Amino acid sequence: MIIVLKPGASKQEIEHIMEKVTKLGLKPWLSEGVERSIIGVIGPEDALRTVPLEGMAGVEKVLPILKPYKLASLDYQKEPSVIDLGRGVKVGGNKLVSMAGPCSVEGKEMLFTVAESVKKAGATVLRGGAFKPRTSPYTFQGLGEEGLKYLAEARERTGLLVVTELMDVRNTELISRYADIIQVGARNMQNFDLLKELGRIKKPILLKRGIANTIKEFLMSAEYILAGGNPNVILCERGIRTFEDYTRFTLDINAVPAIKSLSHLPIMIDPSHSTGRWGMVNAVSRAAIAAGADGLIIEVHPKPEDAISDGDQSLLPEKFAELMSDCKKIAQAVGRTF
Amino acid sequence: MIIVLKPGASKQEIEHIMEKVTKLGLKPWLSEGVERSIIGVIGPEDALRTVPLEGMAGVEKVLPILKPYKLASLDYQKEPSVIDLGRGVKVGGNKLVSMAGPCSVEGKEMLFTVAESVKKAGATVLRGGAFKPRTSPYTFQGLGEEGLKYLAEARERTGLLVVTELMDVRNTELISRYADIIQVGARNMQNFDLLKELGRIKKPILLKRGIANTIKEFLMSAEYILAGGNPNVILCERGIRTFEDYTRFTLDINAVPAIKSLSHLPIMIDPSHSTGRWGMVNAVSRAAIAAGADGLIIEVHPKPEDAISDGDQSLLPEKFAELMSDCKKIAQAVGRTF
Amino acid sequence: MIIVLKPGASKQEIEHIMEKVTKLGLKPWLSEGVERSIIGVIGPEDALRTVPLEGMAGVEKVLPILKPYKLASLDYQKEPSVIDLGRGVKVGGNKLVSMAGPCSVEGKEMLFTVAESVKKAGATVLRGGAFKPRTSPYTFQGLGEEGLKYLAEARERTGLLVVTELMDVRNTELISRYADIIQVGARNMQNFDLLKELGRIKKPILLKRGIANTIKEFLMSAEYILAGGNPNVILCERGIRTFEDYTRFTLDINAVPAIKSLSHLPIMIDPSHSTGRWGMVNAVSRAAIAAGADGLIIEVHPKPEDAISDGDQSLLPEKFAELMSDCKKIAQAVGRTF
Amino acid sequence: MIIVLKPGASKQEIEHIMEKVTKLGLKPWLSEGVERSIIGVIGPEDALRTVPLEGMAGVEKVLPILKPYKLASLDYQKEPSVIDLGRGVKVGGNKLVSMAGPCSVEGKEMLFTVAESVKKAGATVLRGGAFKPRTSPYTFQGLGEEGLKYLAEARERTGLLVVTELMDVRNTELISRYADIIQVGARNMQNFDLLKELGRIKKPILLKRGIANTIKEFLMSAEYILAGGNPNVILCERGIRTFEDYTRFTLDINAVPAIKSLSHLPIMIDPSHSTGRWGMVNAVSRAAIAAGADGLIIEVHPKPEDAISDGDQSLLPEKFAELMSDCKKIAQAVGRTF
Repeated sequence: MIIVLKPGASKQEIEHIMEKVTKLGLKPWLSEGVERSIIGVIGPEDALRTVPLEGMAGVEKVLPILKPYKLASLDYQKEPSVIDLGRGVKVGGNKLVSMAGPCSVEGKEMLFTVAESVKKAGATVLRGGAFKPRTSPYTFQGLGEEGLKYLAEARERTGLLVVTELMDVRNTELISRYADIIQVGARNMQNFDLLKELGRIKKPILLKRGIANTIKEFLMSAEYILAGGNPNVILCERGIRTFEDYTRFTLDINAVPAIKSLSHLPIMIDPSHSTGRWGMVNAVSRAAIAAGADGLIIEVHPKPEDAISDGDQSLLPEKFAELMSDCKKIAQAVGRTF
Repeated sequence: MIIVLKPGASKQEIEHIMEKVTKLGLKPWLSEGVERSIIGVIGPEDALRTVPLEGMAGVEKVLPILKPYKLASLDYQKEPSVIDLGRGVKVGGNKLVSMAGPCSVEGKEMLFTVAESVKKAGATVLRGGAFKPRTSPYTFQGLGEEGLKYLAEARERTGLLVVTELMDVRNTELISRYADIIQVGARNMQNFDLLKELGRIKKPILLKRGIANTIKEFLMSAEYILAGGNPNVILCERGIRTFEDYTRFTLDINAVPAIKSLSHLPIMIDPSHSTGRWGMVNAVSRAAIAAGADGLIIEVHPKPEDAISDGDQSLLPEKFAELMSDCKKIAQAVGRTF
Repeated sequence: MIIVLKPGASKQEIEHIMEKVTKLGLKPWLSEGVERSIIGVIGPEDALRTVPLEGMAGVEKVLPILKPYKLASLDYQKEPSVIDLGRGVKVGGNKLVSMAGPCSVEGKEMLFTVAESVKKAGATVLRGGAFKPRTSPYTFQGLGEEGLKYLAEARERTGLLVVTELMDVRNTELISRYADIIQVGARNMQNFDLLKELGRIKKPILLKRGIANTIKEFLMSAEYILAGGNPNVILCERGIRTFEDYTRFTLDINAVPAIKSLSHLPIMIDPSHSTGRWGMVNAVSRAAIAAGADGLIIEVHPKPEDAISDGDQSLLPEKFAELMSDCKKIAQAVGRTF
Repeated sequence: MIIVLKPGASKQEIEHIMEKVTKLGLKPWLSEGVERSIIGVIGPEDALRTVPLEGMAGVEKVLPILKPYKLASLDYQKEPSVIDLGRGVKVGGNKLVSMAGPCSVEGKEMLFTVAESVKKAGATVLRGGAFKPRTSPYTFQGLGEEGLKYLAEARERTGLLVVTELMDVRNTELISRYADIIQVGARNMQNFDLLKELGRIKKPILLKRGIANTIKEFLMSAEYILAGGNPNVILCERGIRTFEDYTRFTLDINAVPAIKSLSHLPIMIDPSHSTGRWGMVNAVSRAAIAAGADGLIIEVHPKPEDAISDGDQSLLPEKFAELMSDCKKIAQAVGRTF
């Protein structure tokens, strides 16, 4: 850590800061420059991270040297994590994963229809929400456990794995019973009690990035789960909030190579929420695979205009099949397969 | 709701949309223009809100006419809500409320010292976190119930009311037992299960705005609590995330008059998180009162450099006393008192 | 245009608005709903666009129906524009365009070296700045006309076309003399006097998106040039400013399919500025081609660590050759060629 | 400057970096830590600022120590700059400045009416655009020199000073002839050729912040003018672009205390553009004065609904008089006067 001093920092102020650092078991050294003097600190930076050095007299700014996450970092593990999702499906390796299904589980028949069609097109995981985070208290909130049962039944019929969202920490056990992969939604990326709970289990977690969270914060949230003892974290970029209002969110495609250069965890893309428009999902999915993403999670609905949620961004099964065919070509061009 | 059609929308497409609207019990009318035709819809817009009209063939865009929140709206209640916090303290009326205290409850003595000093300076509510949302799993997570007990003890000693954050829905009953006002942090503004739980109790809720949530979404989250049956919602603007990185967040001062023109709910400002720098807290607090905010919530620490969290933005008790004195002058200038 | 009235709008207020609309030669109709009444307006919306209807008594909000741009719109021209850059190079068709070269023209030899290497790798246009927009007045501002001469000489040697930035409207004639394509930088996207000047000439214009401008504003700036009489506008997405600070900017990959669905103009991507890190340029270039972009503009420098500007994001010639080879595979996967 | 090395940086890489630094006339020193080694650099940081150290092998990141602006900085001048605008009006001292008038100069009579009314309410400077930056090429672009003449005539009649915008560098001499203060609009904050031109004259410059520019970049643009030899720079915060769409822009009120802590230059606020809604202008103006701003620039129009531009955010003369009366009370509360 480097502490940059104000031009007029007094001798006492400097000594006070150096004492503070020393008391924490670290070794400070002072370097006096013409325009600015600095204090460098040798030793484990974590001890200093919570000390409000910027508030101390004589301090202009503080520059951290180390990354605040460890287990999620490439420094900790050089090889990409390959996470086993069950039934032979893995994410993070050469083979890409396609997760698809309706936004909400709306009914049994509809779910089975979608499940069969996405399976046929090449998906290996079925997505579907049984508990739905909705902006308005007056809209459909999901079928609850009934929806989970339909998902499990769809798994038995098709062999697809099931991913579904856990919103309420009290439902951890319930969701675990039915799902193969537990999704943490963007709104819960910093629901730390939920993350701690998920650190205690071993199920793979699909952790979605918050709409206003940096890549660093994203990896810190992964760190919560890893530090709790669950190494099976799959990251998912799903669009960030910017000033652009033509699309629902802005897909941060940069996040794919950025995360690959910082972490060993797999990174997937959600092109449906990133754009909010079904007509853009194919193009953005191709971009994700080309950039090096490890998979896609896509909303598919047999009759989007009747969907209870997110119909604007849902693909028809035939459009999804087209997308899979297009993305396979891109996968091949980057030396991977679906 | 107005449905704008694409230039080349076919007769069948138009009829299909009109049928869809009619089936929902609404009355559509078609208006054909030279460049664009539109379908207007008469009747309760909510029925249409979840129908993905934008995904339908022939539709260019959909323009909602009504606001999605009702109980939070000025249309529903013209007079400002004045919320009784207990012990004669009210928020939303002519008298302003000052909430102050440490970021985290770190210990008994420290808490009592702060409580007495902020009380003396004019605060009526003591803030302090017993359960802390921390970006890193490796930093101090709060004293838990022990911290709540200290807060309750500080209330008995000073007569101050207590506001503290509820993070985990499983702690609702626990926090309710100790707190006069329950805080929902920015990260939980869209934790809908938590909001539903808080709709079932009657305690005043201090609802903080999410760092990337619009004013409309903020009011929708308030609506969750109101719709559940708890009318005691106090809004709190605490800075939004923007590209500016000199400050921790960007205080959206516009939100004060904006919310006053849309809702009857009281709106407070948190100048500590909004800026992240103690040297800016006084200026921004004055601005908040001048703009018409109903109160302030401020971090105060007897020795900020030893604070376990948020020390950079915490005020010394004497600086807080100065702030209160400065803000009283502004209050007077806008015809209010502290 | 739809004018939504406030719940309590008086009869006089409504009549006053309807008169106002009628005076502008348009036809208003009133539709009275239970919760809100609206006034619809038939006729050319442009007449109303500058009337501050939202400021009028009784008005809650105003919803425009039409797009404010015309010549840039797909409504105006259904077929994609294919723009002839000279020497047989075209942009907007099946064949993709690769523009490459140093950020600044720093010297003759260095420019020739880069030009030859990028030509060999498959680029058809040489980029290089002679006049540089620099955040600091104390840094290198470009070689000026000398730099333009080197660019022209490089063209003669290699057969590459030349694109270079025009910053100062007074240099329009000067730049036109040397460049095949004139670049408008992100900072000048709304320099309307410059845009008007470029509407008067016929040279192809590479118009970069402003870092905080919406897609709609981007197309409006293109409209300025088109309306002036120059149909040769090439759009270029180069990253927008968001809260994410790991990368220099955030590439808005959504903009590619978005613009394809709104406009007939070609859209290119600048992966160098979008990321600010050379290690991410290849991944993001692949994504751009996969999403349907019409070309790339990339910074290449023979010795990035000696570059006077943007060295952090410049590729070595051999890395650029690798990128071209990777992108050709993606191009093939989407049915296009370089 | 601190250069943080990658964990595996080789001996050769480190030596190469140290040589590079030494060649630039600076003195590097290596400090080897357990997790990361760093290279500190002593001497004038500017020499290194343009060297792309982050692109060099073995480098993880680079942390600058010094601020990139000098003349604009509080380090350079401790006392606030008080800028003489002429006719006894000064900005930056204890007395606040109120600039008011129509968005565009639309006609003679209208301008005189506004001028007289704002003068009566306490304004000392008349604002009005003769050349207007408009998003659409199809809307009113200003009266040009005719507008400037009306402004000059209004000055003679009322004694008000005149501020008007310079958009096109070719009009510098023209605008200088008529205006007392030259405004640089938000879109031109990084039009460096324009800034250089304004560094050559001595007229006071009202420099508006770009909608997506940081405070640091804002001060760098001021530095361009100062470095050119013109010390008369007045900063103006006018709202930044964020995700919030209820208001036209988001006023960054934090910028007032931030700039006061970084620079000696005066800072004004434009509440009209910051909000885009006339009903919010009074509240936000009060906030600005309370936060310590040195003045206001406000749009006033005798009949906003007939305004050719920005009518939604223009105040009626009587509302402006009310605002001045309200702001005088706030000014008094912070120990200043209008």
